[in-house]
Amino acid sequence: PASTSEGTNDMAAAATPENLSLVVHGAGDLRLENYPIPEPGPNEALLKMHSVGICGSDVHYWQHGRIGDFVVKKPMVLGHEASGTVIKVGPLVKHLKPGDRVAIEPGAPRETDEFCKIGRYNLSPSIFFCATPPDDGNLCRFYKHNANFCYKLPDNVTFEEGALIEPLSVGIHACRRAGVTLGDKVFVCGAGPIGLVTLLVAKAMGAAQVVVTDLSASRLSKAKEVGADHTLQVSKESPREIASKVESLLGCKPEVTIECTGAEAAIQAGIYATRSGGTLVLVGMGPEMTTVPLVHAATREVDIKGVFRYCNTWPMAISMLASKSVNVKPLVTHRFPLEKALEAFETSRKGLGLKVMLKCDPNDQNP
Amino acid sequence: PASTSEGTNDMAAAATPENLSLVVHGAGDLRLENYPIPEPGPNEALLKMHSVGICGSDVHYWQHGRIGDFVVKKPMVLGHEASGTVIKVGPLVKHLKPGDRVAIEPGAPRETDEFCKIGRYNLSPSIFFCATPPDDGNLCRFYKHNANFCYKLPDNVTFEEGALIEPLSVGIHACRRAGVTLGDKVFVCGAGPIGLVTLLVAKAMGAAQVVVTDLSASRLSKAKEVGADHTLQVSKESPREIASKVESLLGCKPEVTIECTGAEAAIQAGIYATRSGGTLVLVGMGPEMTTVPLVHAATREVDIKGVFRYCNTWPMAISMLASKSVNVKPLVTHRFPLEKALEAFETSRKGLGLKVMLKCDPNDQNP
Amino acid sequence: PASTSEGTNDMAAAATPENLSLVVHGAGDLRLENYPIPEPGPNEALLKMHSVGICGSDVHYWQHGRIGDFVVKKPMVLGHEASGTVIKVGPLVKHLKPGDRVAIEPGAPRETDEFCKIGRYNLSPSIFFCATPPDDGNLCRFYKHNANFCYKLPDNVTFEEGALIEPLSVGIHACRRAGVTLGDKVFVCGAGPIGLVTLLVAKAMGAAQVVVTDLSASRLSKAKEVGADHTLQVSKESPREIASKVESLLGCKPEVTIECTGAEAAIQAGIYATRSGGTLVLVGMGPEMTTVPLVHAATREVDIKGVFRYCNTWPMAISMLASKSVNVKPLVTHRFPLEKALEAFETSRKGLGLKVMLKCDPNDQNP
Amino acid sequence: PASTSEGTNDMAAAATPENLSLVVHGAGDLRLENYPIPEPGPNEALLKMHSVGICGSDVHYWQHGRIGDFVVKKPMVLGHEASGTVIKVGPLVKHLKPGDRVAIEPGAPRETDEFCKIGRYNLSPSIFFCATPPDDGNLCRFYKHNANFCYKLPDNVTFEEGALIEPLSVGIHACRRAGVTLGDKVFVCGAGPIGLVTLLVAKAMGAAQVVVTDLSASRLSKAKEVGADHTLQVSKESPREIASKVESLLGCKPEVTIECTGAEAAIQAGIYATRSGGTLVLVGMGPEMTTVPLVHAATREVDIKGVFRYCNTWPMAISMLASKSVNVKPLVTHRFPLEKALEAFETSRKGLGLKVMLKCDPNDQNP
Repeated sequence: PASTSEGTNDMAAAATPENLSLVVHGAGDLRLENYPIPEPGPNEALLKMHSVGICGSDVHYWQHGRIGDFVVKKPMVLGHEASGTVIKVGPLVKHLKPGDRVAIEPGAPRETDEFCKIGRYNLSPSIFFCATPPDDGNLCRFYKHNANFCYKLPDNVTFEEGALIEPLSVGIHACRRAGVTLGDKVFVCGAGPIGLVTLLVAKAMGAAQVVVTDLSASRLSKAKEVGADHTLQVSKESPREIASKVESLLGCKPEVTIECTGAEAAIQAGIYATRSGGTLVLVGMGPEMTTVPLVHAATREVDIKGVFRYCNTWPMAISMLASKSVNVKPLVTHRFPLEKALEAFETSRKGLGLKVMLKCDPNDQNP
Repeated sequence: PASTSEGTNDMAAAATPENLSLVVHGAGDLRLENYPIPEPGPNEALLKMHSVGICGSDVHYWQHGRIGDFVVKKPMVLGHEASGTVIKVGPLVKHLKPGDRVAIEPGAPRETDEFCKIGRYNLSPSIFFCATPPDDGNLCRFYKHNANFCYKLPDNVTFEEGALIEPLSVGIHACRRAGVTLGDKVFVCGAGPIGLVTLLVAKAMGAAQVVVTDLSASRLSKAKEVGADHTLQVSKESPREIASKVESLLGCKPEVTIECTGAEAAIQAGIYATRSGGTLVLVGMGPEMTTVPLVHAATREVDIKGVFRYCNTWPMAISMLASKSVNVKPLVTHRFPLEKALEAFETSRKGLGLKVMLKCDPNDQNP
Repeated sequence: PASTSEGTNDMAAAATPENLSLVVHGAGDLRLENYPIPEPGPNEALLKMHSVGICGSDVHYWQHGRIGDFVVKKPMVLGHEASGTVIKVGPLVKHLKPGDRVAIEPGAPRETDEFCKIGRYNLSPSIFFCATPPDDGNLCRFYKHNANFCYKLPDNVTFEEGALIEPLSVGIHACRRAGVTLGDKVFVCGAGPIGLVTLLVAKAMGAAQVVVTDLSASRLSKAKEVGADHTLQVSKESPREIASKVESLLGCKPEVTIECTGAEAAIQAGIYATRSGGTLVLVGMGPEMTTVPLVHAATREVDIKGVFRYCNTWPMAISMLASKSVNVKPLVTHRFPLEKALEAFETSRKGLGLKVMLKCDPNDQNP
Repeated sequence: PASTSEGTNDMAAAATPENLSLVVHGAGDLRLENYPIPEPGPNEALLKMHSVGICGSDVHYWQHGRIGDFVVKKPMVLGHEASGTVIKVGPLVKHLKPGDRVAIEPGAPRETDEFCKIGRYNLSPSIFFCATPPDDGNLCRFYKHNANFCYKLPDNVTFEEGALIEPLSVGIHACRRAGVTLGDKVFVCGAGPIGLVTLLVAKAMGAAQVVVTDLSASRLSKAKEVGADHTLQVSKESPREIASKVESLLGCKPEVTIECTGAEAAIQAGIYATRSGGTLVLVGMGPEMTTVPLVHAATREVDIKGVFRYCNTWPMAISMLASKSVNVKPLVTHRFPLEKALEAFETSRKGLGLKVMLKCDPNDQNP
């Protein structure tokens, strides 16, 4: 970092234009700092950032300085739900030009390894990923990225919709791994942002009925608002009881369950609830070791699949947004200019609202 | 047949209640006759018919006495897009009871052969199929059917919607074979009833944009009405020109093309139009030998798949109708009581409107 | 039962020909008894039994009177790995005639339910299954079965090979669910009969290398004999250590792991061992609740799938046996005439050898 | 080119070591010339070539100067079935080092486009491909290639086996697209090199029986030698007659047909022959427009799929060769040193033998 947010930095001010960035230095240590504006490499695009959503993982890095084995060992710019405008491209970039509005896929493979070759690049161990240590994210004014993972937005898709493609992609990847298809009954555990995008995608893929469960009545009312056919507030029910209630609401067991909480009891409920021959997708991250009725799943051929981020979702998400087939706008409940990022993170940490959006362009704070 | 439509038949009148049936005796020879009411076998349900749509194949058997190798050699009751009410079930039937409103899947396998075992029972060579010679259809007052292929309708699904599951199933099977998925661009050739249901299903499965082509402007305006994103009236364009126009409308080549006309030029256009790695599904039946740019398809890995009727579509169709995820009601443009079946067929033959519905229950002519 | 194995039963001797049958009456109570010869129904075939293998589940019902929720509440004939000769067919049977040599698929659906329709009939809850309470098996002289689930054996496939199609089917279903394909590295946990057939099938499906683990050196030497590329005798290693050794032997992580022991530690090892994006198939049945590193599987997109018996395996197994593409003969280590069934079960219970085969035809005890 | 094969070129001799290369200048104009030794880029490997097979396409470019739209407009080095030894790597290459023996995948994408991202990089329109105009091949002494598409050979796989991975890959891709699986019956049209590798792969993937047809008895005897279960010499039979004979030989219709000739009659035979619900894969390239019984395929749901080269085949091919699961060695019938390339091409052109191998390393002409 060329400067700190408190002090003035003459060199930065002189030699490089300002690039205000939100940097986590370790657990509890979040700072707005001035970074140099990067220069794009041959295959890269330099972007003027517009809208960046705050994800639970951003808050987690700030609060805990780590997520599992990923540890913040040096200052890292946060943010990975993002969109902006191309201002410069490297000499090998052909599909983008300055002025293009783009959504950013935060994961960009560094090597053409076996996983990339088969189209599952999200599993590439050396992948670059915004705001996963040690890779910097894009909660800043200016950011460069692999141009192949910047996707042009049509005029009728807003920057915020572009930024929301990231959480939407989690839902797409989960529903696709689940094989959601026409007429399916789907059980979504958890009505947070990921549960809601999963609900939206499941309906868009043809699910006939989706039931959403959560501990919180207010979250469930949001789920209802964005399209849940049924909601179920759970508290002390056993996993089998939850499964039974889900079956009652749907009139049959769901073909697909998508678990977005990571809670052991919810995973167990998902196994009991899912129809024989169906699929349980684990999106929520739980404890390292989990106790589950594995035989119950195995003997009914209920497949248990996880998701690691996503791959190949941006083009289809943009198509869906452009054709108004899915509406993610209701997910945004708060907006802050980048200068007020600390306040925005505090809002997100408190669990107020759903998606907090940071506006990185001082000259355009529109959605 | 126990009687003819012209004469009186004392025996029939005496021994069996009336079962007015629409019977084709050969090319150009269509009669309303009184058949005996059948007795359901152990696995069968006896149904009081309610609504039966007229399909192009019904009209074709009437006009030509045959479709390909299927020849009307003895009188055959027409009709296979049907719904009704259970009035009696055989002793082995557990899932239905008198009073249940049901939709009828017209194809019911007679043997548990290799195709049935793998879940592709539509390919079973010995399958029973309504109104395919020599099997009788259900354009009549009373009809018995394999109970496993009668599906209970929820209260919020009308009899006519139940009858329309049959054409809807063609669209479902075609879109499923095509692998239509979230965000896809889809090209549907033909805006007749099958083209329209294909359009409806493609959108319900998550297609972002569907372009529909036809010779007729009025058909295309119906397509627009039920959800086409783009329509294209074609006349003398070459197949390559059509492909090029489709690409222009969509902004890219479609991942999926579903050909519903059977015209050689349309099949050719479908091959040129489809994106590399995509799928062309042939629904329309063309000439026995077809000249196509097969190398163009092969070297771009555009898969060419046909459909033979459908399988495993009724449950998902009912789920979709129950949840109001698809609206087939606009397809019905004409209704006639069964007694006026000849007039109804004449209407259908003239290509007036889209779907002509026959109402078989004299006491309930509602949708 | 018409008689007990100890006493003479004049009525049975007089009224019905002898049908010696091996019957479990409850835990620890196994008897040879004389049953009447059954009469085939319209869709059934009456078979003169030839060879029936003893499965671990047969021994388990004898020893414990139950497996999970399946409880022996009334006397049940054991046996489900079987082949024999058709001696009579019901009037609706077309594909079989007296004299045909057949292998028997022990699971035959009773209803055409949703699972049957989609080709996953093994999941049909009402399925008939030989020697699963309350359904009788075929360790007897004469047995009737749904003719659609009796498969004609070519002349060059022996009765014992026919009987071994049942365990082979477990391996086929597991490998198919795992998606084993050309060049795969496969990790098979357990070198019992199921582990060995899984090994055979994996190689036949194109696996390049298979590593088999077991506690027993003698089992592993059999695995080596029938084609294992690597074997690993495990004792006190941790799951992670086993995973690491498997990777060393193969030179990389396996795409597929097939767990045939049901041991919690082995399931854990399977999760650690499998390559990102790969599949772990659970064949062995473990405890009701299992503690596993589910997040480790989920975040690497290692799918966890179970198998419940099998479906659609007999035709392909017969093809493979007829073309000598797989050799199951080495699995048979002991043979006993049906009259010595108790001795045979004792042999099986002691874990001596691999597959104990009972010979039910007193006039033909050949393989 | 820095020099011609006839004259001396002082500059080349002085400034660059000799790199003898086989160059096509246009139809009928094939020359051995001295090219400069290339310098590897950051992601490239420089290879000392060892063995390069002659493909039909190489001969075709020599004879006709073009294949379809691919026209030789400037001198092009031929050769794309190749293996060699790494002698230098670019600074970003991590998985290879000098001395590594490698097989070369001739197609290496230039851009990370939509096709690459989904794992179907063979469809990428801007892909580099050896010896497809304007890209140079590797029939030369020294060649540089994208290091990600150079695959290390195990010690027990020879250079010639490495070179044969290219044709083998065509067979793998075809069989994989066909979905060949355990117990399948497969019909392969054509017993040239591609027909034979398809046969080898089909058997390795578990096909129970493969029937191969050809016009030539000697080719069929080679097919028999490398594993065909049945061969059928065809001459004047109609497509339906061929289909009927194939069915007779197999005892049933094949699930899969792989057409390797491109002849219209053979494609027609493939459609008639394939079982309902099966797949016909087109490998052979026929005329631009082909007349086929498309309705016959469509109404029996016989899918028609093409292949364009291959993708993701080298790793599995190497695994298969390393484990001796497939034997490609019998395919090589002739060997020539690179200096005698014109004689080798003449041999190949005359259709003598199967695979003609050029030996590019003057110090090691071993297999």
